[in-house]
Amino acid sequence: MKLRRSERIVAITKVLTDKPYRLFSLNHFTAKFDAAKSTISEDLSIIKRVFAAEDMGRIETISGAAGGVRFIPKKAADDIENVVTDLCQELSDANRILPGGFLYITDLIFSPEKIMEIGKIFATQFAKLDVDYIITIETKGIPIALATARAMNLPVVSIRKDNRVTEGSAVSINYITGSSKKIETMSLSRRALPEKSKVVIIDDFMKAGGTAKGMLDLLEEFKSEVLDIGVLMETAQPESKLVSDYTSLIVVDKVDEKNQEVVVRPSNCILTEVD
Amino acid sequence: MKLRRSERIVAITKVLTDKPYRLFSLNHFTAKFDAAKSTISEDLSIIKRVFAAEDMGRIETISGAAGGVRFIPKKAADDIENVVTDLCQELSDANRILPGGFLYITDLIFSPEKIMEIGKIFATQFAKLDVDYIITIETKGIPIALATARAMNLPVVSIRKDNRVTEGSAVSINYITGSSKKIETMSLSRRALPEKSKVVIIDDFMKAGGTAKGMLDLLEEFKSEVLDIGVLMETAQPESKLVSDYTSLIVVDKVDEKNQEVVVRPSNCILTEVD
Repeated sequence: MKLRRSERIVAITKVLTDKPYRLFSLNHFTAKFDAAKSTISEDLSIIKRVFAAEDMGRIETISGAAGGVRFIPKKAADDIENVVTDLCQELSDANRILPGGFLYITDLIFSPEKIMEIGKIFATQFAKLDVDYIITIETKGIPIALATARAMNLPVVSIRKDNRVTEGSAVSINYITGSSKKIETMSLSRRALPEKSKVVIIDDFMKAGGTAKGMLDLLEEFKSEVLDIGVLMETAQPESKLVSDYTSLIVVDKVDEKNQEVVVRPSNCILTEVD
Repeated sequence: MKLRRSERIVAITKVLTDKPYRLFSLNHFTAKFDAAKSTISEDLSIIKRVFAAEDMGRIETISGAAGGVRFIPKKAADDIENVVTDLCQELSDANRILPGGFLYITDLIFSPEKIMEIGKIFATQFAKLDVDYIITIETKGIPIALATARAMNLPVVSIRKDNRVTEGSAVSINYITGSSKKIETMSLSRRALPEKSKVVIIDDFMKAGGTAKGMLDLLEEFKSEVLDIGVLMETAQPESKLVSDYTSLIVVDKVDEKNQEVVVRPSNCILTEVD
Protein backbone atom coordinates (compact mmCIF):
# COMPACT_ATOMS: atom_id res chain seq x y z
CA MET A 1 0.00 0.00 0.00
CA LYS A 2 1.32 3.40 -0.99
CA LEU A 3 0.98 5.89 1.85
CA ARG A 4 0.01 9.52 1.65
CA ARG A 5 2.11 12.23 3.28
CA SER A 6 0.11 12.36 6.51
CA GLU A 7 0.32 8.58 6.76
CA ARG A 8 4.03 8.40 5.93
CA ILE A 9 5.02 10.89 8.60
CA VAL A 10 3.14 8.92 11.26
CA ALA A 11 5.22 5.86 10.37
CA ILE A 12 8.50 7.81 10.11
CA THR A 13 7.88 9.49 13.48
CA LYS A 14 7.30 6.09 15.08
CA VAL A 15 10.40 4.51 13.51
CA LEU A 16 12.69 7.40 14.53
CA THR A 17 11.46 7.79 18.11
CA ASP A 18 11.48 4.03 18.74
CA LYS A 19 15.27 4.00 18.43
CA PRO A 20 16.82 7.16 19.84
CA TYR A 21 20.21 8.15 18.35
CA ARG A 22 19.95 5.39 15.74
CA LEU A 23 20.87 6.84 12.34
CA PHE A 24 18.49 5.89 9.50
CA SER A 25 19.55 6.54 5.91
CA LEU A 26 17.13 8.36 3.65
CA ASN A 27 17.23 5.27 1.44
CA HIS A 28 15.74 3.28 4.29
CA PHE A 29 12.61 5.39 4.03
CA THR A 30 12.51 5.79 0.24
CA ALA A 31 12.62 1.99 -0.07
CA LYS A 32 10.17 1.37 2.75
CA PHE A 33 7.58 3.80 1.42
CA ASP A 34 8.34 3.66 -2.29
CA ALA A 35 8.77 7.44 -2.32
CA ALA A 36 11.27 9.87 -3.86
CA LYS A 37 14.14 11.24 -1.80
CA SER A 38 12.74 14.77 -2.12
CA THR A 39 9.39 13.56 -0.79
CA ILE A 40 10.99 11.93 2.26
CA SER A 41 13.08 15.06 2.83
CA GLU A 42 9.93 17.14 2.93
CA ASP A 43 8.34 14.67 5.35
CA LEU A 44 11.37 14.93 7.59
CA SER A 45 11.35 18.71 7.62
CA ILE A 46 7.73 18.70 8.79
CA ILE A 47 8.60 16.25 11.58
CA LYS A 48 11.68 18.27 12.49
CA ARG A 49 9.67 21.50 12.69
CA VAL A 50 6.99 19.97 14.92
CA PHE A 51 9.53 18.40 17.29
CA ALA A 52 11.27 21.75 17.66
CA ALA A 53 8.04 23.71 18.14
CA GLU A 54 6.63 21.24 20.67
CA ASP A 55 9.91 20.67 22.57
CA MET A 56 9.70 16.95 21.92
CA GLY A 57 13.39 16.37 21.27
CA ARG A 58 15.49 16.96 18.18
CA ILE A 59 15.35 15.43 14.70
CA GLU A 60 18.89 15.66 13.35
CA THR A 61 19.70 15.24 9.68
CA ILE A 62 23.28 14.44 8.74
CA SER A 63 24.13 14.98 5.09
CA GLY A 64 26.58 13.06 2.96
CA ALA A 65 26.96 9.42 1.95
CA ALA A 66 27.19 8.17 5.54
CA GLY A 67 24.41 10.52 6.56
CA GLY A 68 20.80 10.08 7.46
CA VAL A 69 18.37 11.15 10.12
CA ARG A 70 18.02 10.40 13.80
CA PHE A 71 15.99 11.31 16.84
CA ILE A 72 17.78 12.78 19.84
CA PRO A 73 15.74 12.87 23.06
CA LYS A 74 16.15 16.23 24.69
CA LYS A 75 14.12 17.71 27.45
CA ALA A 76 13.49 21.44 27.62
CA ALA A 77 14.76 23.24 30.74
CA ASP A 78 11.25 23.95 32.08
CA ASP A 79 10.23 20.35 31.45
CA ILE A 80 13.26 19.12 33.41
CA GLU A 81 12.39 21.46 36.24
CA ASN A 82 8.80 20.21 36.29
CA VAL A 83 9.82 16.55 36.44
CA VAL A 84 12.35 17.17 39.22
CA THR A 85 9.97 19.37 41.20
CA ASP A 86 7.27 16.69 41.00
CA LEU A 87 9.76 14.08 42.18
CA CYS A 88 10.77 16.31 45.10
CA GLN A 89 7.15 16.60 46.09
CA GLU A 90 6.68 12.84 46.05
CA LEU A 91 9.88 12.34 48.03
CA SER A 92 8.84 14.84 50.70
CA ASP A 93 6.18 12.44 51.97
CA ALA A 94 7.03 11.51 55.59
CA ASN A 95 5.67 8.00 54.93
CA ARG A 96 8.85 7.42 52.96
CA ILE A 97 11.01 7.59 56.09
CA LEU A 98 12.46 4.19 56.90
CA PRO A 99 13.96 3.09 60.22
CA GLY A 100 17.47 4.54 60.46
CA GLY A 101 16.55 7.71 58.60
CA PHE A 102 16.65 6.15 55.13
CA LEU A 103 14.26 7.27 52.43
CA TYR A 104 12.13 4.74 50.54
CA ILE A 105 12.62 5.43 46.83
CA THR A 106 12.36 1.95 45.31
CA ASP A 107 8.84 2.53 43.99
CA LEU A 108 9.97 5.62 42.05
CA ILE A 109 13.05 3.92 40.66
CA PHE A 110 11.01 0.94 39.48
CA SER A 111 8.25 3.02 37.88
CA PRO A 112 9.01 2.83 34.13
CA GLU A 113 7.26 6.09 33.24
CA LYS A 114 9.11 8.10 35.90
CA ILE A 115 12.45 6.48 35.27
CA MET A 116 12.23 7.05 31.50
CA GLU A 117 11.78 10.77 32.22
CA ILE A 118 14.81 10.75 34.51
CA GLY A 119 16.80 8.90 31.85
CA LYS A 120 15.91 11.58 29.31
CA ILE A 121 17.08 14.28 31.72
CA PHE A 122 20.49 12.62 32.14
CA ALA A 123 20.65 12.04 28.37
CA THR A 124 20.03 15.76 27.89
CA GLN A 125 22.76 16.65 30.40
CA PHE A 126 25.30 14.31 28.79
CA ALA A 127 24.28 14.85 25.14
CA LYS A 128 27.51 16.66 24.25
CA LEU A 129 29.78 13.94 25.63
CA ASP A 130 31.20 11.21 23.44
CA VAL A 131 30.21 8.23 25.60
CA ASP A 132 30.74 4.51 24.87
CA TYR A 133 29.15 2.94 27.96
CA ILE A 134 26.87 3.81 30.85
CA ILE A 135 28.28 2.28 34.04
CA THR A 136 26.22 1.55 37.12
CA ILE A 137 26.29 -0.62 40.22
CA GLU A 138 23.58 -3.04 41.25
CA THR A 139 20.75 -2.85 42.25
CA LYS A 140 19.00 0.50 42.38
CA GLY A 141 21.34 2.15 39.89
CA ILE A 142 20.29 -0.27 37.17
CA PRO A 143 16.87 1.17 36.22
CA ILE A 144 18.24 4.73 36.04
CA ALA A 145 21.25 3.60 34.02
CA LEU A 146 19.05 1.63 31.61
CA ALA A 147 16.70 4.57 31.09
CA THR A 148 19.64 6.89 30.41
CA ALA A 149 21.25 4.33 28.11
CA ARG A 150 17.98 3.83 26.27
CA ALA A 151 17.73 7.58 25.59
CA MET A 152 21.35 7.68 24.40
CA ASN A 153 21.37 4.32 22.57
CA LEU A 154 24.31 3.04 24.63
CA PRO A 155 25.01 -0.26 26.37
CA VAL A 156 24.96 -0.50 30.17
CA VAL A 157 27.68 -2.19 32.19
CA SER A 158 26.64 -3.07 35.72
CA ILE A 159 29.25 -3.51 38.46
CA ARG A 160 28.46 -6.25 40.96
CA LYS A 161 28.51 -5.77 44.72
CA ASP A 162 30.02 -9.17 45.40
CA ASN A 163 32.78 -11.22 43.88
CA ARG A 164 30.73 -14.28 43.05
CA VAL A 165 31.06 -13.34 39.43
CA THR A 166 30.33 -16.24 37.11
CA GLU A 167 31.40 -14.28 34.08
CA GLY A 168 34.99 -15.34 33.58
CA SER A 169 37.94 -13.41 34.94
CA ALA A 170 36.96 -10.32 36.86
CA VAL A 171 38.59 -7.41 38.64
CA SER A 172 37.53 -6.93 42.25
CA ILE A 173 38.33 -4.08 44.61
CA ASN A 174 37.54 -3.40 48.21
CA TYR A 175 36.15 0.01 48.99
CA ILE A 176 35.07 1.83 52.09
CA THR A 177 31.54 3.18 52.11
CA GLY A 178 32.01 6.86 52.87
CA SER A 179 29.15 7.10 55.33
CA SER A 180 29.11 3.89 57.37
CA LYS A 181 32.86 3.16 57.01
CA LYS A 182 32.24 -0.48 56.14
CA ILE A 183 34.51 -2.40 53.82
CA GLU A 184 32.64 -3.75 50.80
CA THR A 185 33.66 -5.49 47.58
CA MET A 186 32.70 -4.59 44.03
CA SER A 187 33.74 -6.43 40.91
CA LEU A 188 33.47 -6.29 37.16
CA SER A 189 34.03 -9.00 34.61
CA ARG A 190 36.93 -8.32 32.21
CA ARG A 191 34.81 -9.06 29.18
CA ALA A 192 32.04 -6.67 30.21
CA LEU A 193 34.01 -3.52 29.42
CA PRO A 194 36.72 -3.04 26.78
CA GLU A 195 39.82 -1.18 27.97
CA LYS A 196 40.05 2.57 27.38
CA SER A 197 36.30 3.05 27.04
CA LYS A 198 34.74 6.45 27.58
CA VAL A 199 32.07 6.13 30.21
CA VAL A 200 29.48 7.96 32.29
CA ILE A 201 28.60 6.61 35.74
CA ILE A 202 24.94 6.61 36.83
CA ASP A 203 23.76 5.78 40.35
CA ASP A 204 20.73 6.41 42.51
CA PHE A 205 22.27 7.96 45.58
CA MET A 206 25.41 9.70 46.83
CA LYS A 207 26.12 10.43 50.47
CA ALA A 208 29.87 10.69 51.10
CA GLY A 209 30.74 9.36 47.66
CA GLY A 210 32.51 6.18 48.81
CA THR A 211 30.75 3.97 46.29
CA ALA A 212 31.41 6.43 43.45
CA LYS A 213 35.08 6.62 44.50
CA GLY A 214 35.22 2.82 44.48
CA MET A 215 33.74 2.78 40.98
CA LEU A 216 36.35 5.28 39.79
CA ASP A 217 39.11 3.10 41.23
CA LEU A 218 37.68 -0.03 39.64
CA LEU A 219 37.26 1.71 36.29
CA GLU A 220 40.88 2.82 36.44
CA GLU A 221 41.79 -0.87 36.27
CA PHE A 222 39.98 -0.89 32.92
CA LYS A 223 41.78 2.29 31.82
CA SER A 224 38.35 3.88 31.40
CA GLU A 225 37.92 7.58 30.91
CA VAL A 226 35.09 8.71 33.21
CA LEU A 227 33.47 11.71 31.55
CA ASP A 228 30.85 12.44 34.21
CA ILE A 229 28.89 10.97 37.10
CA GLY A 230 25.12 11.35 37.33
CA VAL A 231 23.24 10.63 40.55
CA LEU A 232 19.52 10.92 41.09
CA MET A 233 19.87 12.13 44.69
CA GLU A 234 22.69 13.41 46.86
CA THR A 235 22.64 14.33 50.53
CA ALA A 236 23.50 17.90 51.46
CA GLN A 237 25.75 16.50 54.23
CA PRO A 238 28.66 15.79 54.12
CA GLU A 239 29.16 18.76 51.84
CA SER A 240 32.58 17.55 50.80
CA LYS A 241 32.28 14.26 48.89
CA LEU A 242 35.02 11.79 48.00
CA VAL A 243 34.47 12.61 44.32
CA SER A 244 34.33 16.13 42.97
CA ASP A 245 32.75 16.11 39.52
CA TYR A 246 29.20 14.84 39.43
CA THR A 247 25.70 15.93 38.47
CA SER A 248 22.79 15.33 40.82
CA LEU A 249 19.12 16.02 40.18
CA ILE A 250 17.88 16.21 43.77
CA VAL A 251 19.45 17.27 47.06
CA VAL A 252 18.29 15.71 50.33
CA ASP A 253 18.65 18.31 53.06
CA LYS A 254 17.03 16.43 55.88
CA VAL A 255 15.39 13.11 56.77
CA ASP A 256 14.25 13.62 60.35
CA GLU A 257 12.93 10.34 61.71
CA LYS A 258 11.92 11.79 65.07
CA ASN A 259 9.86 14.69 63.74
CA GLN A 260 8.80 12.79 60.63
CA GLU A 261 10.07 15.41 58.25
CA VAL A 262 11.74 15.13 54.84
CA VAL A 263 13.29 18.14 53.13
CA VAL A 264 14.43 17.69 49.51
CA ARG A 265 14.94 20.19 46.70
CA PRO A 266 16.01 20.29 43.05
CA SER A 267 19.78 20.37 42.67
CA ASN A 268 21.47 23.52 41.37
CA CYS A 269 22.91 21.52 38.45
CA ILE A 270 19.56 21.16 36.77
CA LEU A 271 18.53 24.76 37.23
CA THR A 272 21.25 25.94 34.89
CA GLU A 273 19.95 26.23 31.37
CA VAL A 274 20.69 23.30 29.08
CA ASP A 275 21.01 24.53 25.51
CA MET B 1 1.09 28.24 16.76
CA LYS B 2 -1.81 26.44 15.13
CA LEU B 3 -0.69 23.20 13.54
CA ARG B 4 -1.82 21.71 10.27
CA ARG B 5 -3.05 18.12 10.06
CA SER B 6 0.30 16.65 9.01
CA GLU B 7 1.98 18.51 11.88
CA ARG B 8 -0.64 17.60 14.46
CA ILE B 9 -0.41 13.90 13.77
CA VAL B 10 3.37 13.96 14.22
CA ALA B 11 2.87 15.42 17.69
CA ILE B 12 -0.01 13.08 18.58
CA THR B 13 1.97 10.03 17.43
CA LYS B 14 4.89 11.09 19.65
CA VAL B 15 2.69 11.75 22.68
CA LEU B 16 0.85 8.42 22.42
CA THR B 17 3.90 6.21 21.77
CA ASP B 18 5.94 7.89 24.51
CA LYS B 19 3.57 6.50 27.14
CA PRO B 20 2.31 3.05 26.19
CA TYR B 21 -1.09 2.07 27.65
CA ARG B 22 -1.60 5.59 29.05
CA LEU B 23 -5.12 6.75 28.21
CA PHE B 24 -5.35 10.31 26.82
CA SER B 25 -8.74 11.98 26.60
CA LEU B 26 -9.72 13.58 23.33
CA ASN B 27 -10.01 16.82 25.25
CA HIS B 28 -6.30 16.61 26.01
CA PHE B 29 -5.59 16.95 22.30
CA THR B 30 -8.37 19.42 21.43
CA ALA B 31 -7.00 21.75 24.12
CA LYS B 32 -3.35 21.19 23.24
CA PHE B 33 -3.84 21.85 19.54
CA ASP B 34 -6.82 24.19 19.66
CA ALA B 35 -8.72 21.88 17.29
CA ALA B 36 -12.27 20.51 17.11
CA LYS B 37 -13.07 17.05 18.45
CA SER B 38 -13.99 15.87 14.95
CA THR B 39 -10.62 17.07 13.64
CA ILE B 40 -8.71 15.17 16.33
CA SER B 41 -10.86 12.10 15.67
CA GLU B 42 -9.88 12.18 12.02
CA ASP B 43 -6.21 12.59 12.99
CA LEU B 44 -6.49 9.57 15.23
CA SER B 45 -8.09 7.41 12.56
CA ILE B 46 -5.21 8.15 10.20
CA ILE B 47 -2.69 7.21 12.92
CA LYS B 48 -4.69 4.11 13.77
CA ARG B 49 -4.78 3.00 10.14
CA VAL B 50 -1.03 3.45 9.66
CA PHE B 51 -0.14 1.60 12.86
CA ALA B 52 -2.33 -1.31 11.78
CA ALA B 53 -0.99 -1.36 8.22
CA GLU B 54 2.65 -1.14 9.31
CA ASP B 55 2.36 -3.57 12.26
CA MET B 56 3.62 -0.90 14.65
CA GLY B 57 1.30 -1.72 17.53
CA ARG B 58 -2.31 -0.78 18.15
CA ILE B 59 -4.01 2.58 18.64
CA GLU B 60 -7.06 1.87 20.76
CA THR B 61 -9.92 4.33 21.12
CA ILE B 62 -12.27 3.91 24.05
CA SER B 63 -15.55 5.78 23.77
CA GLY B 64 -17.63 7.33 26.53
CA ALA B 65 -17.00 9.93 29.20
CA ALA B 66 -14.07 8.03 30.74
CA GLY B 67 -12.77 7.18 27.30
CA GLY B 68 -9.89 8.35 25.20
CA VAL B 69 -7.10 6.94 23.12
CA ARG B 70 -3.99 4.94 23.91
CA PHE B 71 -1.10 3.16 22.28
CA ILE B 72 -0.65 -0.55 22.91
CA PRO B 73 2.73 -1.97 21.87
CA LYS B 74 2.19 -5.20 20.02
CA LYS B 75 4.66 -7.09 17.95
CA ALA B 76 3.53 -9.05 14.91
CA ALA B 77 4.21 -12.80 14.95
CA ASP B 78 6.85 -12.64 12.20
CA ASP B 79 8.55 -9.72 13.93
CA ILE B 80 8.70 -11.71 17.19
CA GLU B 81 10.17 -14.65 15.33
CA ASN B 82 12.82 -12.43 13.72
CA VAL B 83 13.90 -10.90 17.02
CA VAL B 84 14.12 -14.28 18.74
CA THR B 85 15.93 -15.91 15.80
CA ASP B 86 18.49 -13.08 15.78
CA LEU B 87 19.00 -13.50 19.52
CA CYS B 88 19.51 -17.25 19.07
CA GLN B 89 22.15 -16.56 16.46
CA GLU B 90 24.00 -14.19 18.80
CA LEU B 91 23.76 -16.68 21.64
CA SER B 92 25.16 -19.52 19.53
CA ASP B 93 28.61 -17.91 19.56
CA ALA B 94 31.03 -20.29 21.32
CA ASN B 95 32.86 -17.26 22.75
CA ARG B 96 29.89 -16.93 25.09
CA ILE B 97 30.77 -20.14 26.91
CA LEU B 98 31.96 -19.41 30.44
CA PRO B 99 33.88 -21.75 32.74
CA GLY B 100 31.40 -24.25 34.19
CA GLY B 101 29.29 -24.33 31.05
CA PHE B 102 27.48 -21.07 31.73
CA LEU B 103 26.48 -18.78 28.89
CA TYR B 104 27.49 -15.10 28.92
CA ILE B 105 24.30 -13.10 28.25
CA THR B 106 24.89 -9.96 30.30
CA ASP B 107 25.73 -7.83 27.26
CA LEU B 108 22.41 -8.71 25.61
CA ILE B 109 20.41 -8.10 28.75
CA PHE B 110 22.04 -4.70 29.26
CA SER B 111 21.60 -3.57 25.65
CA PRO B 112 18.64 -1.17 25.77
CA GLU B 113 17.61 -1.63 22.12
CA LYS B 114 17.55 -5.43 22.39
CA ILE B 115 15.90 -5.51 25.76
CA MET B 116 13.15 -3.10 24.69
CA GLU B 117 12.30 -5.50 21.85
CA ILE B 118 12.18 -8.40 24.30
CA GLY B 119 9.98 -6.35 26.61
CA LYS B 120 7.55 -5.69 23.76
CA ILE B 121 7.42 -9.42 23.02
CA PHE B 122 6.45 -10.24 26.61
CA ALA B 123 3.99 -7.34 26.60
CA THR B 124 2.40 -8.83 23.48
CA GLN B 125 2.23 -12.28 25.11
CA PHE B 126 0.64 -10.91 28.29
CA ALA B 127 -1.55 -8.21 26.71
CA LYS B 128 -4.80 -10.01 27.54
CA LEU B 129 -3.99 -10.40 31.24
CA ASP B 130 -5.16 -7.93 33.84
CA VAL B 131 -1.80 -7.33 35.55
CA ASP B 132 -1.02 -4.94 38.44
CA TYR B 133 2.74 -5.54 38.85
CA ILE B 134 5.68 -7.10 37.05
CA ILE B 135 7.74 -9.08 39.57
CA THR B 136 11.40 -9.95 39.08
CA ILE B 137 14.45 -10.94 41.10
CA GLU B 138 17.76 -9.11 41.06
CA THR B 139 19.99 -8.73 39.09
CA LYS B 140 19.66 -9.93 35.54
CA GLY B 141 15.88 -10.14 35.64
CA ILE B 142 15.61 -6.40 36.24
CA PRO B 143 16.29 -5.07 32.72
CA ILE B 144 13.85 -7.55 31.14
CA ALA B 145 11.21 -6.79 33.75
CA LEU B 146 11.63 -3.03 33.26
CA ALA B 147 11.35 -3.32 29.48
CA THR B 148 8.20 -5.42 29.81
CA ALA B 149 6.78 -3.05 32.41
CA ARG B 150 7.58 -0.06 30.23
CA ALA B 151 5.64 -1.60 27.32
CA MET B 152 2.69 -2.37 29.61
CA ASN B 153 2.83 0.81 31.73
CA LEU B 154 3.14 -1.18 34.96
CA PRO B 155 5.38 -0.84 38.01
CA VAL B 156 8.16 -3.36 38.67
CA VAL B 157 8.73 -4.98 42.03
CA SER B 158 12.16 -6.53 42.43
CA ILE B 159 12.75 -9.31 44.94
CA ARG B 160 16.14 -9.19 46.69
CA LYS B 161 18.51 -12.12 46.92
CA ASP B 162 19.57 -11.32 50.46
CA ASN B 163 17.81 -10.27 53.61
CA ARG B 164 19.75 -7.08 54.20
CA VAL B 165 16.64 -5.20 53.27
CA THR B 166 16.68 -1.60 54.46
CA GLU B 167 13.12 -1.05 53.41
CA GLY B 168 11.15 -1.64 56.57
CA SER B 169 9.56 -4.96 57.47
CA ALA B 170 10.15 -7.64 54.88
CA VAL B 171 9.20 -11.24 54.22
CA SER B 172 12.11 -13.61 53.65
CA ILE B 173 12.06 -17.20 52.55
CA ASN B 174 14.74 -19.80 52.02
CA TYR B 175 14.62 -21.68 48.77
CA ILE B 176 16.63 -24.42 47.17
CA THR B 177 18.06 -23.68 43.76
CA GLY B 178 16.76 -26.50 41.61
CA SER B 179 20.02 -27.13 39.79
CA SER B 180 22.84 -26.70 42.32
CA LYS B 181 20.76 -27.67 45.38
CA LYS B 182 22.07 -24.74 47.40
CA ILE B 183 19.97 -22.98 50.01
CA GLU B 184 19.51 -19.30 49.22
CA THR B 185 17.43 -16.50 50.70
CA MET B 186 15.12 -14.11 48.90
CA SER B 187 13.14 -11.31 50.47
CA LEU B 188 10.62 -8.65 49.66
CA SER B 189 9.69 -5.55 51.58
CA ARG B 190 6.07 -5.49 52.79
CA ARG B 191 5.48 -2.02 51.42
CA ALA B 192 6.76 -2.93 47.94
CA LEU B 193 3.73 -4.99 47.00
CA PRO B 194 0.12 -4.57 48.17
CA GLU B 195 -1.62 -7.78 49.18
CA LYS B 196 -3.78 -9.60 46.63
CA SER B 197 -2.07 -8.02 43.63
CA LYS B 198 -2.26 -9.67 40.23
CA VAL B 199 1.25 -10.19 38.97
CA VAL B 200 3.39 -11.59 36.17
CA ILE B 201 6.90 -12.87 36.98
CA ILE B 202 9.75 -12.06 34.59
CA ASP B 203 13.23 -13.56 34.83
CA ASP B 204 16.22 -14.11 32.59
CA PHE B 205 16.81 -17.81 33.01
CA MET B 206 15.13 -21.02 34.14
CA LYS B 207 16.95 -24.30 34.64
CA ALA B 208 15.14 -26.51 37.15
CA GLY B 209 12.80 -23.71 38.21
CA GLY B 210 13.94 -23.48 41.84
CA THR B 211 14.13 -19.70 41.83
CA ALA B 212 10.73 -19.39 40.15
CA LYS B 213 9.27 -21.81 42.71
CA GLY B 214 10.80 -19.69 45.50
CA MET B 215 9.23 -16.58 44.00
CA LEU B 216 5.82 -18.29 43.88
CA ASP B 217 6.18 -19.25 47.56
CA LEU B 218 7.24 -15.75 48.53
CA LEU B 219 4.40 -14.19 46.54
CA GLU B 220 1.95 -16.47 48.31
CA GLU B 221 2.90 -14.63 51.51
CA PHE B 222 1.60 -11.50 49.79
CA LYS B 223 -1.56 -13.31 48.64
CA SER B 224 -0.57 -12.44 45.08
CA GLU B 225 -2.26 -14.01 42.12
CA VAL B 226 0.49 -15.05 39.68
CA LEU B 227 -1.03 -14.89 36.20
CA ASP B 228 2.01 -16.05 34.24
CA ILE B 229 5.79 -16.41 34.30
CA GLY B 230 7.96 -15.17 31.43
CA VAL B 231 11.60 -16.22 31.09
CA LEU B 232 13.98 -15.16 28.38
CA MET B 233 15.78 -18.52 28.28
CA GLU B 234 15.12 -21.98 29.63
CA THR B 235 17.32 -25.05 29.48
CA ALA B 236 15.94 -28.11 27.69
CA GLN B 237 17.17 -30.23 30.65
CA PRO B 238 15.74 -31.00 33.14
CA GLU B 239 12.59 -31.30 31.07
CA SER B 240 10.42 -31.34 34.16
CA LYS B 241 10.66 -28.02 36.00
CA LEU B 242 9.54 -27.18 39.52
CA VAL B 243 6.92 -24.80 38.06
CA SER B 244 4.54 -25.80 35.30
CA ASP B 245 3.06 -22.68 33.72
CA TYR B 246 5.58 -20.38 32.12
CA THR B 247 6.45 -18.82 28.78
CA SER B 248 10.02 -18.89 27.51
CA LEU B 249 11.40 -17.24 24.39
CA ILE B 250 14.54 -19.32 23.90
CA VAL B 251 15.47 -22.93 24.69
CA VAL B 252 19.10 -23.82 25.45
CA ASP B 253 19.68 -27.37 24.25
CA LYS B 254 23.39 -27.59 24.86
CA VAL B 255 26.36 -25.62 26.17
CA ASP B 256 29.30 -27.93 25.54
CA GLU B 257 32.41 -26.45 27.12
CA LYS B 258 34.72 -29.20 25.87
CA ASN B 259 33.72 -29.03 22.22
CA GLN B 260 32.98 -25.29 22.38
CA GLU B 261 29.47 -25.67 21.07
CA VAL B 262 26.26 -23.82 21.93
CA VAL B 263 22.87 -24.99 20.67
CA VAL B 264 19.89 -22.71 21.26
CA ARG B 265 16.55 -22.36 19.46
CA PRO B 266 13.35 -20.32 19.62
CA SER B 267 10.90 -21.72 22.13
CA ASN B 268 7.67 -23.31 20.90
CA CYS B 269 5.66 -20.76 22.90
CA ILE B 270 6.57 -17.92 20.60
CA LEU B 271 5.92 -19.83 17.41
CA THR B 272 2.21 -20.03 18.13
CA GLU B 273 0.36 -17.17 16.53
CA VAL B 274 -0.40 -14.21 18.81
CA ASP B 275 -3.57 -12.53 17.65
